[in-house]
Amino acid sequence: MKKIVTFGQIMMRLSPPAFARFSQAHRFDITYAGGEANVAIATAQWDVQAVHVTRFPNNDIGKAAIMYLRKYGLDTSEIQLGGDRMGIYFVENGANARASQVIYDRLNDSFCTLEADSFDWERILTGADWFHFTGITPALSESAAQACLEAVQTARKLGVKISADVNYRKGLWNWGKTPQDIMPELVSYCDLIVCGNSNADDLFGIKPLPEDKNKWVSTSKQIMEKYPNIKLILDTKRDSISASHNQLKGKAWNGEKFYKTTTYDIHHIVDRIGSGDAFIAGFLYGYDYFDQSVQHALEFATSAAALKHTVEGDFNLVSIDEVERLSSGDSSGKLSR
Amino acid sequence: MKKIVTFGQIMMRLSPPAFARFSQAHRFDITYAGGEANVAIATAQWDVQAVHVTRFPNNDIGKAAIMYLRKYGLDTSEIQLGGDRMGIYFVENGANARASQVIYDRLNDSFCTLEADSFDWERILTGADWFHFTGITPALSESAAQACLEAVQTARKLGVKISADVNYRKGLWNWGKTPQDIMPELVSYCDLIVCGNSNADDLFGIKPLPEDKNKWVSTSKQIMEKYPNIKLILDTKRDSISASHNQLKGKAWNGEKFYKTTTYDIHHIVDRIGSGDAFIAGFLYGYDYFDQSVQHALEFATSAAALKHTVEGDFNLVSIDEVERLSSGDSSGKLSR
Amino acid sequence: MKKIVTFGQIMMRLSPPAFARFSQAHRFDITYAGGEANVAIATAQWDVQAVHVTRFPNNDIGKAAIMYLRKYGLDTSEIQLGGDRMGIYFVENGANARASQVIYDRLNDSFCTLEADSFDWERILTGADWFHFTGITPALSESAAQACLEAVQTARKLGVKISADVNYRKGLWNWGKTPQDIMPELVSYCDLIVCGNSNADDLFGIKPLPEDKNKWVSTSKQIMEKYPNIKLILDTKRDSISASHNQLKGKAWNGEKFYKTTTYDIHHIVDRIGSGDAFIAGFLYGYDYFDQSVQHALEFATSAAALKHTVEGDFNLVSIDEVERLSSGDSSGKLSR
Amino acid sequence: MKKIVTFGQIMMRLSPPAFARFSQAHRFDITYAGGEANVAIATAQWDVQAVHVTRFPNNDIGKAAIMYLRKYGLDTSEIQLGGDRMGIYFVENGANARASQVIYDRLNDSFCTLEADSFDWERILTGADWFHFTGITPALSESAAQACLEAVQTARKLGVKISADVNYRKGLWNWGKTPQDIMPELVSYCDLIVCGNSNADDLFGIKPLPEDKNKWVSTSKQIMEKYPNIKLILDTKRDSISASHNQLKGKAWNGEKFYKTTTYDIHHIVDRIGSGDAFIAGFLYGYDYFDQSVQHALEFATSAAALKHTVEGDFNLVSIDEVERLSSGDSSGKLSR
Amino acid sequence: MKKIVTFGQIMMRLSPPAFARFSQAHRFDITYAGGEANVAIATAQWDVQAVHVTRFPNNDIGKAAIMYLRKYGLDTSEIQLGGDRMGIYFVENGANARASQVIYDRLNDSFCTLEADSFDWERILTGADWFHFTGITPALSESAAQACLEAVQTARKLGVKISADVNYRKGLWNWGKTPQDIMPELVSYCDLIVCGNSNADDLFGIKPLPEDKNKWVSTSKQIMEKYPNIKLILDTKRDSISASHNQLKGKAWNGEKFYKTTTYDIHHIVDRIGSGDAFIAGFLYGYDYFDQSVQHALEFATSAAALKHTVEGDFNLVSIDEVERLSSGDSSGKLSR
Amino acid sequence: MKKIVTFGQIMMRLSPPAFARFSQAHRFDITYAGGEANVAIATAQWDVQAVHVTRFPNNDIGKAAIMYLRKYGLDTSEIQLGGDRMGIYFVENGANARASQVIYDRLNDSFCTLEADSFDWERILTGADWFHFTGITPALSESAAQACLEAVQTARKLGVKISADVNYRKGLWNWGKTPQDIMPELVSYCDLIVCGNSNADDLFGIKPLPEDKNKWVSTSKQIMEKYPNIKLILDTKRDSISASHNQLKGKAWNGEKFYKTTTYDIHHIVDRIGSGDAFIAGFLYGYDYFDQSVQHALEFATSAAALKHTVEGDFNLVSIDEVERLSSGDSSGKLSR
Repeated sequence: MKKIVTFGQIMMRLSPPAFARFSQAHRFDITYAGGEANVAIATAQWDVQAVHVTRFPNNDIGKAAIMYLRKYGLDTSEIQLGGDRMGIYFVENGANARASQVIYDRLNDSFCTLEADSFDWERILTGADWFHFTGITPALSESAAQACLEAVQTARKLGVKISADVNYRKGLWNWGKTPQDIMPELVSYCDLIVCGNSNADDLFGIKPLPEDKNKWVSTSKQIMEKYPNIKLILDTKRDSISASHNQLKGKAWNGEKFYKTTTYDIHHIVDRIGSGDAFIAGFLYGYDYFDQSVQHALEFATSAAALKHTVEGDFNLVSIDEVERLSSGDSSGKLSR
Repeated sequence: MKKIVTFGQIMMRLSPPAFARFSQAHRFDITYAGGEANVAIATAQWDVQAVHVTRFPNNDIGKAAIMYLRKYGLDTSEIQLGGDRMGIYFVENGANARASQVIYDRLNDSFCTLEADSFDWERILTGADWFHFTGITPALSESAAQACLEAVQTARKLGVKISADVNYRKGLWNWGKTPQDIMPELVSYCDLIVCGNSNADDLFGIKPLPEDKNKWVSTSKQIMEKYPNIKLILDTKRDSISASHNQLKGKAWNGEKFYKTTTYDIHHIVDRIGSGDAFIAGFLYGYDYFDQSVQHALEFATSAAALKHTVEGDFNLVSIDEVERLSSGDSSGKLSR
Repeated sequence: MKKIVTFGQIMMRLSPPAFARFSQAHRFDITYAGGEANVAIATAQWDVQAVHVTRFPNNDIGKAAIMYLRKYGLDTSEIQLGGDRMGIYFVENGANARASQVIYDRLNDSFCTLEADSFDWERILTGADWFHFTGITPALSESAAQACLEAVQTARKLGVKISADVNYRKGLWNWGKTPQDIMPELVSYCDLIVCGNSNADDLFGIKPLPEDKNKWVSTSKQIMEKYPNIKLILDTKRDSISASHNQLKGKAWNGEKFYKTTTYDIHHIVDRIGSGDAFIAGFLYGYDYFDQSVQHALEFATSAAALKHTVEGDFNLVSIDEVERLSSGDSSGKLSR
Repeated sequence: MKKIVTFGQIMMRLSPPAFARFSQAHRFDITYAGGEANVAIATAQWDVQAVHVTRFPNNDIGKAAIMYLRKYGLDTSEIQLGGDRMGIYFVENGANARASQVIYDRLNDSFCTLEADSFDWERILTGADWFHFTGITPALSESAAQACLEAVQTARKLGVKISADVNYRKGLWNWGKTPQDIMPELVSYCDLIVCGNSNADDLFGIKPLPEDKNKWVSTSKQIMEKYPNIKLILDTKRDSISASHNQLKGKAWNGEKFYKTTTYDIHHIVDRIGSGDAFIAGFLYGYDYFDQSVQHALEFATSAAALKHTVEGDFNLVSIDEVERLSSGDSSGKLSR
Repeated sequence: MKKIVTFGQIMMRLSPPAFARFSQAHRFDITYAGGEANVAIATAQWDVQAVHVTRFPNNDIGKAAIMYLRKYGLDTSEIQLGGDRMGIYFVENGANARASQVIYDRLNDSFCTLEADSFDWERILTGADWFHFTGITPALSESAAQACLEAVQTARKLGVKISADVNYRKGLWNWGKTPQDIMPELVSYCDLIVCGNSNADDLFGIKPLPEDKNKWVSTSKQIMEKYPNIKLILDTKRDSISASHNQLKGKAWNGEKFYKTTTYDIHHIVDRIGSGDAFIAGFLYGYDYFDQSVQHALEFATSAAALKHTVEGDFNLVSIDEVERLSSGDSSGKLSR
Repeated sequence: MKKIVTFGQIMMRLSPPAFARFSQAHRFDITYAGGEANVAIATAQWDVQAVHVTRFPNNDIGKAAIMYLRKYGLDTSEIQLGGDRMGIYFVENGANARASQVIYDRLNDSFCTLEADSFDWERILTGADWFHFTGITPALSESAAQACLEAVQTARKLGVKISADVNYRKGLWNWGKTPQDIMPELVSYCDLIVCGNSNADDLFGIKPLPEDKNKWVSTSKQIMEKYPNIKLILDTKRDSISASHNQLKGKAWNGEKFYKTTTYDIHHIVDRIGSGDAFIAGFLYGYDYFDQSVQHALEFATSAAALKHTVEGDFNLVSIDEVERLSSGDSSGKLSR
């Protein structure tokens, strides 16, 4: 993969240090993140040109966000300045049986109020291997949904492959349309989606057939029948033993075969937010890197997602070497001198 | 003064540590503040029952805000929970010739979307000596303006004295009415206002008469003629030598006499935000404390405002002793053991 | 439960950050806590009026302590100012096989030197559901012991239920009397005590009967015989696998039946201090909340105690929802958005 | 100015927080800086393409440095990876009569050991308005001096203007040649140099003529005679009243006229390191921006340098607006909302 | 000077960071200090063997204190372990007109409860040039006063010169004797004292004679008549313009001549606590270093004291070079590379 | 053991806080450490006179290092000042499957450039029980290797026992000789070495005999045959389950018997660097403390090493009590009050 283009909201993330509850916090650590940008930035660590398209307020906070993203390798040249505010989310870090907590303040931000026709998608997408978006983008506002549709249509036209994390969030979708109105068309252009059974039901009304043993494959088959552009469906299975201990597995269906990974046991979680995005980034990168081997890409993706749990913030700042060491079975974390 | 009631928006204030620019900041120090609440909290340090009326989102951020305010002595029992978000403002600390910078993200917060008739002003105001608001409150939204009008009318009815910092902010007033539509009525109920010449012009169309030597007194006289309830008009004169060095004077007009203070020379400014609110709190408290002596109250107010510049955050966390030591001329800052 | 009154020493707690040893620490994080106040503050998170009675020095440290406690919802209106100093304790955070360490500097503080007859217990206790104290209070000084006795007598008279964590600390009791002189009378007024076998022996000379299988029930029966006001005896069983990993169970005897909870497995401990107090708060609150169901209250109490291990500081800053989620068996710590 | 290319060593800068002495420091704040890169980054804030050429070790420290610089807008595409180590300097922040202190550990770093012929200067310099270097670059190693010579020769050939801060540092120049061997040739290609009288003497053996009143102009005239490519010579005059209070003036000689600025009075210094580089960046940018007006460019440059004293770290992170506000005489530092 | 022995209480010093008030502080920076130890440690920076005699609790806090002091060069081999607690003082940093504030919690600490006869003064003092104590030591407890008396008597016997900062603190002296009972005898053994007019009156009942013009010399003469061992009396004159700006002068009387220094103007004060101790250390060191020149020693002492205001904490961590640079008139604080 | 002398490089250790990657770090926590000094400092906690011989630059960084080491009880009186720079190493803290990472910048530091004949080993070693060095010392430079040889020869002559951690690091040994040239002679003087099978092969060309079951004993026997001064060979076996979870066992061969310890299970690792040095310190101390009982010394050593994983930084700041509690089987980490 040489170039990826992603599109979506980026928010300022504010987190109390260590394990402080919101009410105990005297300061917030500042990062910036968003589901789509997280994918872009993970691949930027692996020398991919990662272009993220979004919109920030034209003030020193918006500019600070751009500087932050640029540091981590994002190509910020397509970020627009305008609108009124930076979206924000607050993250409280849980431990053991106390869950981590996220509070969003994302509405009416500069992304939500973008102008749908202000993006020159042909120019932006030229030369890209993949375009990636999530189900959150069209959920935020009408203009975001329109811009997203235009993006996928242009990508399709240019032969850029399209990936989507369908990601249905109940609390959003307040702008007049339902996800059932919007997502099917968007997904119909995709080559690859990340979709579990509950999303399949919520968004596409697809349920596993009772006669099928592997419920997820059952659903995935039906999705592919309905949206024949889709060649790959992915999902992860997370077992949450506690906020500090999770287990993770990746799975894939390519229309013919069901793939799954070994279980990655993740103790001493540092920060699990963004691990789903790390999984997608890992697959998109790995699929090409391993010559279209789904199994190899899936191990790479799940290993990348597992490592994300050890990195502070949303971004998966890990090297290809680190991912491959773990995906090849070495989880020893031995001191490297 | 036994009890004061204030009404207005409170925001989360996020500031980079020390002198970092926004783009350099890795963390924000968290406080919460608002022009009216700042007045209430300053008086709470002097054992006044300080009730602030506002509205926060019903989540752990809103609750953290209440806990923060409660710590500093605010009576938070009349704070409502509801609406979507906490207003936020970002403060970058300047130095010498580099100005401090404030970026607001205050619109559509839980205060702006309050329900105008949800406050039981009779109960809230009973027993209060003063009700205080600023020109920012009606500037934020229609419902805030309506609630404010109801509050001043009820206060008037109950014999609670009313104070207003007329404070015209150009960037606000986007909800349909102009300040000229709204402020005159609100001010007509007031006993005391803080108002300088440019505000007088912007809000009431009152300009000093060419024949009057003291331009501010000229304006103030006309204001009192137009709004006969007003018995006292206050203002401060700030000379900004640099972001680290200011000079401050207080002035007052009681319809008969012009009062002013000595000049307070303020080097090594720690945080100047909230000093105007500290001035008002000082006057309201001092006026009663010094048996209606305008001159004493004014010195107390200006001394309080000067001390505010030495305290981190918006709140004027200083004792009566500290204020009186300075207002009596001792600015030596001698070590107290 | 509507109102609880607690009585006891509150100290400034000074802790090196993260896992630093005392000798490595360049700064201390500041909180304030005390066994009885911890109980009060846990219930204050659940909207109980939590009145704590204590005494602080009349200086800016004493006032800072009040402000800190007020933030977390404590009703501080009965805190007296006087005496010479704030008690202090130092907490070094252990990890794995290295134990956490507490060093106390609590003697001669403002609480120890309180005036026994300076509390208007009738007024303070009116309307309270519970009065709670611990065996540390009478251990600190003669006047503290006297005030405590007066408090329990008044509570009894007013029909306020009384709870005590008998908590024998060898290093204290230097003021002239032994715990055997004092505790029996205090406990004789109680409705509920927390007492394990070693405390029963040390304080009341009661040992389990050889013929009884359940040694703790054996002891508890004898205690109830001797002190017939006591209707409930509680205890926790903690298995310390390491400083970072504990297991916790609650048990209760109501004179008729032995109750116990499932084992709560607590990895990745953030801070275990105050978990015993969280247990008591959980029981007192839960007993009422679950209509006197001992089993439900005990699960609620033990779940609250388990969650305490995930919160920094002594206070159990967790919601009823969080406690019930865990007590109902969900320890997954799944991200809450 | 559209594009600037700079060449020189960049070091990790490690500073104790606030006013701690080295022996008191428990942590270092990390930035990265270098005299030439400081110039580039100052102009990058004003939307100039700022390409810095240097060399870092090929490890995660070298990569972290690139990420840091990229954040602040530097074009890092010409930074080479190789060699053994990152140069470091330690900065202790002084106050009042206690001087700030810098300790260098810059030798044998990846820059010093660069390969002289590994830079494709034609490609790098194409399209550039200015090439800038300092006298430190050739002082570090033979290969650095050779690369620098090749760079200025190529720049001359391509018509790229050349600027040099001649900056003689006694402690360096250990690689075999003296500055008198090397600097004259390098300077002979320059269009603009920054050079005071002591540097003129040390490097070029030029002393003011006794008959000339303005000693600096006297020297500058002789320099221009000897090196006729030089069209502009600049210098600053700093009066150090204390480590916290400096006064600064800029001066220029264009072969015909002596220019100087008003005195900028700088109290409450936050960080003075990099202010000389900020001056140069200001002049190079301002000279073009103000249509070759030396006086305007000089005021802009000195204002930029004065503002640098208010910014933490070496980089002059200030906007054109901020510089012009001060250069136009407004040093009030008034709060900007 | 080769060796100095000092005797007195050392406390843990807890300070909120930057300019936070006590009520705003979430953490305390930790140092350890005491008037006598401050003198010892200042001289330890100048390669004097500085032995401090005191007593700490035998726990990890006491040991941490020893480790802290050892770091700064103190010879801790004569520190005893025993007693119950570490004395503590809290320091709130003022600014401009807001005074710094110190709250002591020093009573009943391990020093106060020392055993008077447990010090082998002969061994400890052997080889010392000076023994130094302050008027605080005998004010703390009877045993401290007794040990101090034994120390000065032994020093006298061994020919070790004795220095005392008479330093009368009203709030102390609660153990039964008045300073008038104790100080005259102690002082009668001294060679040098630091004593201003108010202390002279409070401690020795000596007032300046009306006929004498220089009031302090008048007092000093009478002191020397009464206590003929005293050969030198010192004092400083501090003008406190604000908490951030002081002026300082040193003065001395050697029985024959009145000496004074230029005025040291100290802006941007970082931490003024300990500057009196820095003055004494400077004089004791300088007197020898400058071959008994009172004037030189006095300039060195006052320069050292002025520099102390730029160093965080009580200790004067400055080099001889730094002191001499300032005492020779260079207050420029020029960057040292 | 009364006195130990160690010889080797000490570096400044710079670590991002918590789990930040190098690229995310805004500050480094500062400690100083080195393999040999770590051994000395561990024993200094147990009241051994621990003299470390090394060389630092003669500037405020070198002096800060000395002050740091002195704090932790090192006898720094034999540290020389000279040379150009302080060696540095950067430590990034891993978690779970992400390995910790160390980047060295140790060459050309003041230790590497020491003068071989500048140490008065006779004086330094007099009275010592042990002299300890590691295989890193001779690997750094020719003069370091020469000084090391002189030290072991002198120790041998004086009857001081010699211990070596042979520790072969591939990346070093760039000064002209191979470890096979140098190490055998050095080791031939030793009484005790720490050596695993791969080091035995790399350094001495010794491989286990195929017929021997215990491969390590097989190697150890051959080493002892070749170097008959060696009476004890030690090693640890570490199983790295993850960067946060290791298992550790100690083993020893005394020429007659193979000893091993129970397995120490180490969860929640705080900092594993230095645990090998803690093991050696534990053995050297314990061997004497337990009257030459290899088994007891080995348990003490392994317990000390296990506890090291719970302490921040390289130094093993644990008490004898703490080590014995764990070596006696109590790993409960129970709160100590």
